Amino acid sequence: MRTDAETSPSDAPEDEDWEPLVDEINTIDRAQDGSLVVYICWKNGKSTEHPAEVAYKRCPQKMLQFYEGRLRFRPK
Amino acid sequence: MRTDAETSPSDAPEDEDWEPLVDEINTIDRAQDGSLVVYICWKNGKSTEHPAEVAYKRCPQKMLQFYEGRLRFRPK
Repeated sequence: MRTDAETSPSDAPEDEDWEPLVDEINTIDRAQDGSLVVYICWKNGKSTEHPAEVAYKRCPQKMLQFYEGRLRFRPK
Repeated sequence: MRTDAETSPSDAPEDEDWEPLVDEINTIDRAQDGSLVVYICWKNGKSTEHPAEVAYKRCPQKMLQFYEGRLRFRPK
C-alpha cells in the first residue's frame, strides 16, 4: 500500500532513493498555500512536481546542488 | 586512522551523522580558492568550519533548512 499517493505523482519513480534518477531540479516555487513545490526533471525525460519535503528526503544532494548553484553572497 | 583530518577540525564530532548534533548552520562563505566554507554552530556550544562537501554529506537536512530559509523568489 502506498501511503504517499497524494505527494508522489504517478510519473515519479517509486524508489526510495531518487538521486540516481533525477536529471536536475528545474525550479522551486511557492504554492498558494505557502508551501514549497519542487519541479524535477528525470533522466527518463519526464517532469514531475513534489512538495519540498519529499524532494529533501528522496534527493537531498540534488536539492543542495540546486541551491548552491543559486547562491548569492552579500557584499562585505 | 582518520582520512579526513584536514577537513574535520578537532572540535567537530567524529560521528558520521551530524544531523542530531548541529544546532544551526551559521553561514556559508566563499574561500579565497573559490570553494565554499560552511560555519556550523553545534548544540554543545562550539563552532567549526568545514568544506561544503563535508556538511552536505554529514548534515544535508540542516543545510537544506539553511538554504530554504534564505530563498528569494524572482518576481513573475
